[in-house]
Amino acid sequence: MRTILLIGIGAGDPGQLTVAAAAAMRQADVFFLLDKGAEKHDLIALRQELLARYARPDHRVVEVRDPDRDRTADGYVTAVDDWRRQRADLLETAIVEQLREGGCGAFLVWGDPALYDSTLAIVEDILARQRVAFTYTVIPGVSSVATLAARHRISLNRVGRPFLVTTGRRLAAHLPRDVDDIVVMLDAHCAFTRHLDQDLDIYWGAYLGTSDEILIAGPVAEVADHIVRTRQEARTRKGWIMDTYLLRRRDPAKT
Amino acid sequence: MRTILLIGIGAGDPGQLTVAAAAAMRQADVFFLLDKGAEKHDLIALRQELLARYARPDHRVVEVRDPDRDRTADGYVTAVDDWRRQRADLLETAIVEQLREGGCGAFLVWGDPALYDSTLAIVEDILARQRVAFTYTVIPGVSSVATLAARHRISLNRVGRPFLVTTGRRLAAHLPRDVDDIVVMLDAHCAFTRHLDQDLDIYWGAYLGTSDEILIAGPVAEVADHIVRTRQEARTRKGWIMDTYLLRRRDPAKT
Repeated sequence: MRTILLIGIGAGDPGQLTVAAAAAMRQADVFFLLDKGAEKHDLIALRQELLARYARPDHRVVEVRDPDRDRTADGYVTAVDDWRRQRADLLETAIVEQLREGGCGAFLVWGDPALYDSTLAIVEDILARQRVAFTYTVIPGVSSVATLAARHRISLNRVGRPFLVTTGRRLAAHLPRDVDDIVVMLDAHCAFTRHLDQDLDIYWGAYLGTSDEILIAGPVAEVADHIVRTRQEARTRKGWIMDTYLLRRRDPAKT
Repeated sequence: MRTILLIGIGAGDPGQLTVAAAAAMRQADVFFLLDKGAEKHDLIALRQELLARYARPDHRVVEVRDPDRDRTADGYVTAVDDWRRQRADLLETAIVEQLREGGCGAFLVWGDPALYDSTLAIVEDILARQRVAFTYTVIPGVSSVATLAARHRISLNRVGRPFLVTTGRRLAAHLPRDVDDIVVMLDAHCAFTRHLDQDLDIYWGAYLGTSDEILIAGPVAEVADHIVRTRQEARTRKGWIMDTYLLRRRDPAKT
């Protein structure tokens, strides 16, 4: 039986690797890397650094070219589904051809595999097709959300209160009413700028955990322009950006 | 100037310690431990194991007896505030008396310091009093929520959708309507049993990351009794329990 490990490797700081993740890396014969094209070259370099430090000397790397995603599609969920299917096709073939019976293959996942990452769903898809059998294990990691909070030295929740984790797409549609602390991920369009009339603080971070890390915090109406400009400049300079933020209502009603 | 490190040490598995957390532990002269009484002896033993493995041989441990919390108080937030103030008094005195100028003190925090943990707020309280000055840094950790998801091999979110993190107290009051994936923490009273008429799956875990780990998953109406019984037996046997769970609506409307 083949074994597959989904290893959370932290948000971008090699120091965020856990002891268990390092041990899992030593166990793997083959690493399956999804190559997202040249624009995220820094992340690939970081991953190579982890491989050089923790993987076995005789490990192999199988690069799979990530299919392009149709970002213009009307149905967002449908587009993601199609893209996952193509990825599953490619990775299934890679596992069948590159991982011997009894071997151990690994995926290195930025942050934590349970948070807005598709690797787990792809692995389940491949298993469901029953063309190749394997057992798999998930090794949790330090998420970009935990890193954001640590760098700003804030809690995600307030005492006894909830928080929501959502996407930029949803925040652009409306600001949730029933919750006063909102973590936003996958926001390519600065959806916080839609809510400048609200009594909100923002805690924003980009390239979290790396030497390029940028942090900005303050009342959203005051710092929104600064974040939009900083984000645009950084994205142009580096060719890519990964960012996340927390929106926090000041003085929420004690409910 | 004194330095204080708030170090996330993972959910209970020593393997969840990160490389950065281990390095931070080596940096500390003094560890401030909040002793919560005999009932959580296992956790203290785990912490001792980490200290023996990662702290400097000449490190000192200062144990501070945690004040008892008034769990009968009507105002939950007020009770927590009072309790935090007493903790801040005790820890401020400990820092003044036990940490020399220029020294480095550390707090070891289970899971991640940003998630339903009060250490950060206490440290801010102590700084605000201006009786003792220090700089402080937060080192993020693997949370019990990430561990729950990893063990059940599930994502916390579904594609493009949000999830809420809330407390047992709030879930007992009502089931949130606008979100279909709900992580529940701090639930001493099995609040999921209030929602057995709903089309929900539950993914429950206790003692996550430890050798006593227990996992139960299924439709909440079918497995609720099993979880309640298992939880009660484990709590009686060990004298304490830490658990968390995800509630997931089946077939949510595509909104």
